Amino acid sequence: MFARSSATLVKEIKHINRLPIRPLQLARSMATMKALVYNGVNKIALEDHPKPSPTKATDAVVKLKYSTICGTDLHIMKGDVPTCAPGTILGHEGVGIIDEVGAGISNFKPGDEVLISCISSCGTCEYCRRGMNSHCTSGGWVLGNHIDGTQAEFVRIPNADSSLYKIPAGVDPKAMVMLSDILPTGFECGVLNGKVEPGNSVVIVGSGPVGLAALVTAQLYSPSLLIMIDPDENRLEVAKQFGAHYTATPDKAEELVKSLTDGKGCDTVIEAVGVPATFHQCQDLIAPGGTIANVGVHGVKADLYLEKLWDKNISITTRLVDTTTTPMLLKLLAARKLPAEKLITHSFPFADMLKAYSTFKDAAENKALKVIIEM
Amino acid sequence: MFARSSATLVKEIKHINRLPIRPLQLARSMATMKALVYNGVNKIALEDHPKPSPTKATDAVVKLKYSTICGTDLHIMKGDVPTCAPGTILGHEGVGIIDEVGAGISNFKPGDEVLISCISSCGTCEYCRRGMNSHCTSGGWVLGNHIDGTQAEFVRIPNADSSLYKIPAGVDPKAMVMLSDILPTGFECGVLNGKVEPGNSVVIVGSGPVGLAALVTAQLYSPSLLIMIDPDENRLEVAKQFGAHYTATPDKAEELVKSLTDGKGCDTVIEAVGVPATFHQCQDLIAPGGTIANVGVHGVKADLYLEKLWDKNISITTRLVDTTTTPMLLKLLAARKLPAEKLITHSFPFADMLKAYSTFKDAAENKALKVIIEM
Amino acid sequence: MFARSSATLVKEIKHINRLPIRPLQLARSMATMKALVYNGVNKIALEDHPKPSPTKATDAVVKLKYSTICGTDLHIMKGDVPTCAPGTILGHEGVGIIDEVGAGISNFKPGDEVLISCISSCGTCEYCRRGMNSHCTSGGWVLGNHIDGTQAEFVRIPNADSSLYKIPAGVDPKAMVMLSDILPTGFECGVLNGKVEPGNSVVIVGSGPVGLAALVTAQLYSPSLLIMIDPDENRLEVAKQFGAHYTATPDKAEELVKSLTDGKGCDTVIEAVGVPATFHQCQDLIAPGGTIANVGVHGVKADLYLEKLWDKNISITTRLVDTTTTPMLLKLLAARKLPAEKLITHSFPFADMLKAYSTFKDAAENKALKVIIEM
Amino acid sequence: MFARSSATLVKEIKHINRLPIRPLQLARSMATMKALVYNGVNKIALEDHPKPSPTKATDAVVKLKYSTICGTDLHIMKGDVPTCAPGTILGHEGVGIIDEVGAGISNFKPGDEVLISCISSCGTCEYCRRGMNSHCTSGGWVLGNHIDGTQAEFVRIPNADSSLYKIPAGVDPKAMVMLSDILPTGFECGVLNGKVEPGNSVVIVGSGPVGLAALVTAQLYSPSLLIMIDPDENRLEVAKQFGAHYTATPDKAEELVKSLTDGKGCDTVIEAVGVPATFHQCQDLIAPGGTIANVGVHGVKADLYLEKLWDKNISITTRLVDTTTTPMLLKLLAARKLPAEKLITHSFPFADMLKAYSTFKDAAENKALKVIIEM
Repeated sequence: MFARSSATLVKEIKHINRLPIRPLQLARSMATMKALVYNGVNKIALEDHPKPSPTKATDAVVKLKYSTICGTDLHIMKGDVPTCAPGTILGHEGVGIIDEVGAGISNFKPGDEVLISCISSCGTCEYCRRGMNSHCTSGGWVLGNHIDGTQAEFVRIPNADSSLYKIPAGVDPKAMVMLSDILPTGFECGVLNGKVEPGNSVVIVGSGPVGLAALVTAQLYSPSLLIMIDPDENRLEVAKQFGAHYTATPDKAEELVKSLTDGKGCDTVIEAVGVPATFHQCQDLIAPGGTIANVGVHGVKADLYLEKLWDKNISITTRLVDTTTTPMLLKLLAARKLPAEKLITHSFPFADMLKAYSTFKDAAENKALKVIIEM
Repeated sequence: MFARSSATLVKEIKHINRLPIRPLQLARSMATMKALVYNGVNKIALEDHPKPSPTKATDAVVKLKYSTICGTDLHIMKGDVPTCAPGTILGHEGVGIIDEVGAGISNFKPGDEVLISCISSCGTCEYCRRGMNSHCTSGGWVLGNHIDGTQAEFVRIPNADSSLYKIPAGVDPKAMVMLSDILPTGFECGVLNGKVEPGNSVVIVGSGPVGLAALVTAQLYSPSLLIMIDPDENRLEVAKQFGAHYTATPDKAEELVKSLTDGKGCDTVIEAVGVPATFHQCQDLIAPGGTIANVGVHGVKADLYLEKLWDKNISITTRLVDTTTTPMLLKLLAARKLPAEKLITHSFPFADMLKAYSTFKDAAENKALKVIIEM
Repeated sequence: MFARSSATLVKEIKHINRLPIRPLQLARSMATMKALVYNGVNKIALEDHPKPSPTKATDAVVKLKYSTICGTDLHIMKGDVPTCAPGTILGHEGVGIIDEVGAGISNFKPGDEVLISCISSCGTCEYCRRGMNSHCTSGGWVLGNHIDGTQAEFVRIPNADSSLYKIPAGVDPKAMVMLSDILPTGFECGVLNGKVEPGNSVVIVGSGPVGLAALVTAQLYSPSLLIMIDPDENRLEVAKQFGAHYTATPDKAEELVKSLTDGKGCDTVIEAVGVPATFHQCQDLIAPGGTIANVGVHGVKADLYLEKLWDKNISITTRLVDTTTTPMLLKLLAARKLPAEKLITHSFPFADMLKAYSTFKDAAENKALKVIIEM
Repeated sequence: MFARSSATLVKEIKHINRLPIRPLQLARSMATMKALVYNGVNKIALEDHPKPSPTKATDAVVKLKYSTICGTDLHIMKGDVPTCAPGTILGHEGVGIIDEVGAGISNFKPGDEVLISCISSCGTCEYCRRGMNSHCTSGGWVLGNHIDGTQAEFVRIPNADSSLYKIPAGVDPKAMVMLSDILPTGFECGVLNGKVEPGNSVVIVGSGPVGLAALVTAQLYSPSLLIMIDPDENRLEVAKQFGAHYTATPDKAEELVKSLTDGKGCDTVIEAVGVPATFHQCQDLIAPGGTIANVGVHGVKADLYLEKLWDKNISITTRLVDTTTTPMLLKLLAARKLPAEKLITHSFPFADMLKAYSTFKDAAENKALKVIIEM
């Protein structure tokens, strides 16, 4: 999940306020749990926090089994995400067990093992009806941002009927955590938006976890050429293990791409970094008729070389993950056709959460991709 | 037709050279015709020129009945199009009668009335097979650019079998000239790329001939909201006559668009000017999930506000017209469902070609859209 | 709405049973209302019936302002729809005012004017996520079939958040009733499935209300040729008023279609009757590369002439309306671009419901299309 | 290639006749070659035949290196294909070397190694422009049917510029022969028409060469479930080697499919046999929202169970291969991502052509898939 700069108007608070507090709920809310709380710039701590309850008929509470840390959590720590107020529990990924459901929940019951989607969606607003769940008018990326998240023993999930997924028997729940955010992000924002098709040529700029998620899911469409670009030689090595046919550092990227495509460039260029320099390079790597699929989170504007691109019949796409492909990815994972577990390099108990953060923060040094937190 | 900055490698010359000159052809080529010739910056003249003959088996020669002038011809006059060498006959639009065909031509015979497409295409190269005729490896926009064009009594058409269209009986040939370039350009680059659909909201930035062509053809898809933006009040008035529901000058554009769309912006934004300021404005007018379809010819880069757009699920498209929709537009014109003739405001005999140019050059002052040249 | 032969498993009853009956609800349920009840083959009556209340947190109750009668209601009367048990209130179309909402409803509040969709959908099941609301695992066509319907003073709507639509100010609520079923049916099953596109040729077999709904909505895509086939000359006359370019009785259909399409047939053939003879004729009217979009409800098998069609690159589609295009059609209706009200030929007060049925039953004789019931 | 029952009007003969015979051509045409000639029902023979020359400016002549036999050739032998007159050289598949080109050929020169497509296409007619090359108004399936084919030392290829493909260096030419017909047929008619997508469930009815071609190419889209149905246990075994996850004989098909899909059926059902019984079974195997893609050649009509399918939101498609995906498949073959060579089970020198036919005719007994003929 990436930070949402243009914040969705979240109406959670008024929902909470308009419901009468039942005595039982009051009693329950005095129960506490451990949670990783954002306390302002560069301050996170494992703290006691009240255990959540359903505050709306369409809520569910999930007891977490596994969670993970996302690059966006590091952005929040740095203070880059103003929608996340100090005091918020971080995290928007995880799997767990349904603990309690509101009166309006039909699809789940206590005891069900579920995948938590990083995107909460009502399923009925204008955007959800169009498959743009990321822009749900009463949801979107709210977990660990506008409301408390998944790096805790329990989490309250709004609109649970459409924001959770049952985990089929026999699937590794740790691998499943990769479906909360990173795999649908690479697939939807990179592969689908980039229109990867059998026989196409694909270059991915940025071999971090999201770039690798795009690399893994691009192979579902059997491109004939898959190139990975990154300045870090170790990450390029990892990319090869994940299926890249060729790799290059940015200074060699254009030469390599042109030499492998008769000078034309690639049909699909996936931007998985989020800075102007990489976006500019994408414009040099794109073939006529191709697509630049932006996955990276950008904090500043970039140059668009329209004088070169206006007659090149290209598309540029942006997207916040909608997680509409989660059920499909789940099927592939269950059929053992998606090596999600390979993205996990480290594992920590929840008590070592701060160590997990520091390991993930220095990912290159630690050769870390995704870290799993065991609750 | 817009200038092609990244020039396609044209192989016409070697084709010409490798064929033996037959004595008959020699005799014929001594015949002359009148033609409007580009003689360097700001120099055009109506001159005698050798009448062309087929130089390749897949060529045809067309005797023109009607031609017109395009904004790109003005660009060439200003010296903005380096691929067009002095001495070239201008023009890439027109209708006429087949005069002569090469030995490899199957679809046409002398006497057939034909529409000339601004794009020459072989129908067999990698790009033509994908419907990207504009990038045909032995064609593209060559007429009145790399080779002699249609502002003449006769024109040689390479790859004639796939670059000409028979005109059905009963269709006004003057209206048909609008199908050479401007209508497919507005439709393909603006409407199709912009994914106009029934019920969508559409805003077009730029109410010149190409913007109006987009406006006319957008209505084929029944959008529920059609807004036109232009600084010229007269052109906005014209836009209303062509079906715009609302119009605004650029300073009022964002306010109008937001007020008509619950603050969301339009599903489709069509850029039909080609300067940074208008492209920047498009980014303020686009709704989440929408498309900015660039039609304008850009000479310099523009800013892309990725920090606002990265999570907005939008597309930006560019395209040089492929004229793949010409047969469809021709059907609609024949069925009287495309008011192409309304784009014609002035008519001149070929002898008054220079006057036609000056009228078209001061289009705003003359309230000119397209001018028809009668040969 | 058409009868659903392969019945969706409806889980309404268990939902009803598992909720405690609150004393207030009990009081309310003793209130009565007038309703048109199906009492077995050929027996319908206007009876007193208990006024419904929300039985689930995601229910709403709507007080009807207008309803209408569908061809399927006649099928039920004949005993053709076994899923509809005697004692059921008929009707699956209407507009009204929200009377009461369950605790899980977010999108509506009492007093809102709403359109009732003939399809109830949860928005979260496998089918709803794919836009196949008609196959919703806890919904689909249930109103006036599995559960009480809209030909009553009040109706209970399950999954109300995704099964109702707010009516914008200034829209004629009677015209809006045409959006409950008939217009989305013609549009989705006929026009969208039939891939009507600008410039296409379209023939519709059957000029009843659903065929006319397809005719009206086909024009949203600007086909160049629209032909209507029906044995009833009066209905063909009506079709012309609704925009058909040509009409023919079935015996002249093939000759007319072939003469207007250079012998090729139509790109889109819409079957809007539902008997083998009309489906067979569609196979004679289809062009290579075309689509036969079935809208009719079929009770028996038909012949498929694969020996003629196997190499003709055609598609045949079936569909129960999903009402996923209702929001879009609503926008077009609000923008006065959809002449829905023209489909209404008769109007009756609710007290004259039996007369309304008899008028609609003898539609041809009464030149009836849709009848409006005013509550 | 399958027999074309509704024959395209072929205009080859008049092209031949209207061109003057040049003396050189006359001399050349006295040269002879060996060819496999169809001499009426059940009569084929290896005979001397005049070596062909280009008879039109857009023709090329190819010297064959490898050819193969298709099921359709057996149909011709049986007299099932009336468009193929006695005296015709059979065969529509092969690779070879350009021997001679007409004056209108731009893409090839003598000495080029080329793949021959089973479909000849002009690239400029209404159908070719739409990607329906199979319906080319001056081509389609003509080789070894309307005109002499590829089971000969030389073959004349009409519209050579768009009907041949250069073979990239390093590709096995024998594997390439599988791209003439069988792989694009399985891919276009089965996989693309069947809308195979990542995570989908797919069942293929018929494990002959075409069914296996669909099986191989379906995997380009990473379905989560691939089932093969055939009465021959050996062929099911082969299917497993080609990647089928499950197999069943027809009597067990429905039970297996339903048990693997929660009772729903498969998203894609590919019919690769061509008789009513298999087409009927497909209707029992299809899930709501799914597609039945017909690949089989049908000689008689079949039953369509519309009473079960009308509300099931399904599509049924037919298609004669267009070979529009040949360039893409060629790229995948060159990138070693398409195990085309695995379809070849036997190899024969051209002199043993009759033995090759008898081996292929008793395919099941000989465990034959495709046989390669070395010229």
